[in-house]
Amino acid sequence: MTHWSDAARAERDSARPGDVWLVGAGPGDPELLTLKAARLIGEADIVFHDALVGRGVLALIRPGALTIAVGKRSGRHSKDQHSINDLLIEAAREGARVVRLKGGDPSIFGRSGEEIAALASAGITVRICPGITTACAAAAGAVSSLTLRGLSRQLIFVTAHARAGEALDLDWAALAAEQSSLAIYMGRAAAPEVARKLIGAGRAGTTPAVVAVNVSLPDERLIHTRLDALAFAVATISGDAPTMLLVGEAFADRGRVAAPVRIAIKA
Amino acid sequence: MTHWSDAARAERDSARPGDVWLVGAGPGDPELLTLKAARLIGEADIVFHDALVGRGVLALIRPGALTIAVGKRSGRHSKDQHSINDLLIEAAREGARVVRLKGGDPSIFGRSGEEIAALASAGITVRICPGITTACAAAAGAVSSLTLRGLSRQLIFVTAHARAGEALDLDWAALAAEQSSLAIYMGRAAAPEVARKLIGAGRAGTTPAVVAVNVSLPDERLIHTRLDALAFAVATISGDAPTMLLVGEAFADRGRVAAPVRIAIKA
Repeated sequence: MTHWSDAARAERDSARPGDVWLVGAGPGDPELLTLKAARLIGEADIVFHDALVGRGVLALIRPGALTIAVGKRSGRHSKDQHSINDLLIEAAREGARVVRLKGGDPSIFGRSGEEIAALASAGITVRICPGITTACAAAAGAVSSLTLRGLSRQLIFVTAHARAGEALDLDWAALAAEQSSLAIYMGRAAAPEVARKLIGAGRAGTTPAVVAVNVSLPDERLIHTRLDALAFAVATISGDAPTMLLVGEAFADRGRVAAPVRIAIKA
Repeated sequence: MTHWSDAARAERDSARPGDVWLVGAGPGDPELLTLKAARLIGEADIVFHDALVGRGVLALIRPGALTIAVGKRSGRHSKDQHSINDLLIEAAREGARVVRLKGGDPSIFGRSGEEIAALASAGITVRICPGITTACAAAAGAVSSLTLRGLSRQLIFVTAHARAGEALDLDWAALAAEQSSLAIYMGRAAAPEVARKLIGAGRAGTTPAVVAVNVSLPDERLIHTRLDALAFAVATISGDAPTMLLVGEAFADRGRVAAPVRIAIKA
C-alpha cells in the first residue's frame, strides 16, 4: 500500500508551530515546485528565502505571513550564515510555522548542513521537503538525459564557487573520466579554469558541453558548445544570471547543432 | 521579469496532440510530484508508466485516458526498450497527447536517452518535465544534506545495477575519495560488493552510510549504518523494495545513533 492516510500525513508532514521546514524552491519556474512545497509555503507563518527564489514562488505565501529575504546572491560569509541560523531559531521558539526556502534542492549545495546542525542543537525539529535541483531542470530544458546507459554512467555534481582569489580545489582526475557527466553549479566565473583543468587532466576538448543560464525561467538560455569552447560560450552571457555547466558525452546536441557555438570576437 | 505570460506557457508547456512528454514521477509520494507534472498527467490522453510509479501518482490520470504499464521492475532487456519506443511513436502518430511517466527524474538512470533518440528519429517532438530524484528525497527523509561545505564537496550518482553474473564496472578510485558523497541507485543486491570495493580502494570502513528503502512512501525505512556494516544492514530488508545507498561523511547520524546498526545474526 502506498497511500497515506490523512492522519498519518498530517502528523508527519504538516508545518507545525515551532518546527522548521527546509523547502526546495526548485530552479525558478513556480510550476516546478512540488505539490508538497507549495502546500508548506502556503501553511507557513514566516518564510525565509534566498535571493534566487523568484517572485512566482513567493506569490504562494499566504497573505499575512512574514516574508524575509536572507542570503546574498553568491558568496555568503559565515557571519551571514550565523545570522540566518539565529533568525530561524528565534522564529521557531516564538512558535511560528517556519519555512526556509532554498533555490533548487536544499540538500545540494544549499548549506543546509549548517542550518540543520544549528537547529538541532537548539532542540528544534527540522524537516526537509526536496526540490528540483537545477541540473535536472537544465537537462530537461536541453531534452537530454544526464546519464546514458553504457556511455555516461556516473553523474558528478560539484560547485565551481571559490572564494575570491582562490583556485578551485576539485578532484580533476575523477571529473576528467570519460564516462562522467558533470553538473557544475555556479560555473560561470570559473568556466575557463574548469575547461583548462579538465583538458589538462585528459578530458577531450571535443567533449560536448551546455551552458545553462536562468534555467526554467522565461529567459532561459541553453548554449550547446564543447569543452574547448566553453570559455567563449560563457563570455556571451551578460549580467550575473545564475549559470550551470553540463559537460559530458550525454550532452551531444544530436541532430540540432553539430558544430560548436561560433563567437564573434570583438577587436 | 520571471513571470510567464499565460500564452507563452501554453505554447511551450502544454501537452499537445502528437507530442511526447517524458515526465518525472518522483520517488513515490504523490505530493512530491511537481505542479507541472501533475498538470501534464491530467492533460494526457495516454500515459505509459514504469512499474515503480505508484497508485497515488496514477490517480491523477483523467478518467477516459488510457493507462499502460511498461517496463519491468529492474533489468529490462533491450527488446523491451524497443517495444516501448514503438508504442510511444505509435501513440504520438495517432495524435494523442502522450505522457511517459518515469520514477524519479527522467534524466537520471531512466533510460531516457534511448527514448529521446527514437522519438527524434521518428520526427516526434519530445519534451521533459523533471522530477525529484530518489537521492534528494532520501536525504530529505534522513534530514541530511547530500553536500557539506568543505567536507563533502562532490556528489556522485551511480547505479549498482549490473547484468546477472557480471561484476560492477565503476570508477572505484573516484568513489573512494573522502570528500565524495555517493548516491548509489538500485544498490541492494550489490551492497556487499560496493562496500568491499570502496574499502579496497581506500575509503574508511567507518564512513557513514544510509540504506534507504521505499523512499518517501508510508513504509519508508532509513537504516543508519557505516560502510563496513553495509552488507549486514542490507540483509535486514525483506522483499524486493527499491533501495538506495548513501555513503559519505555527510550522512553521519549526528545526535541520533552513534553506533552502527546492530544485527542479530541467526544461527
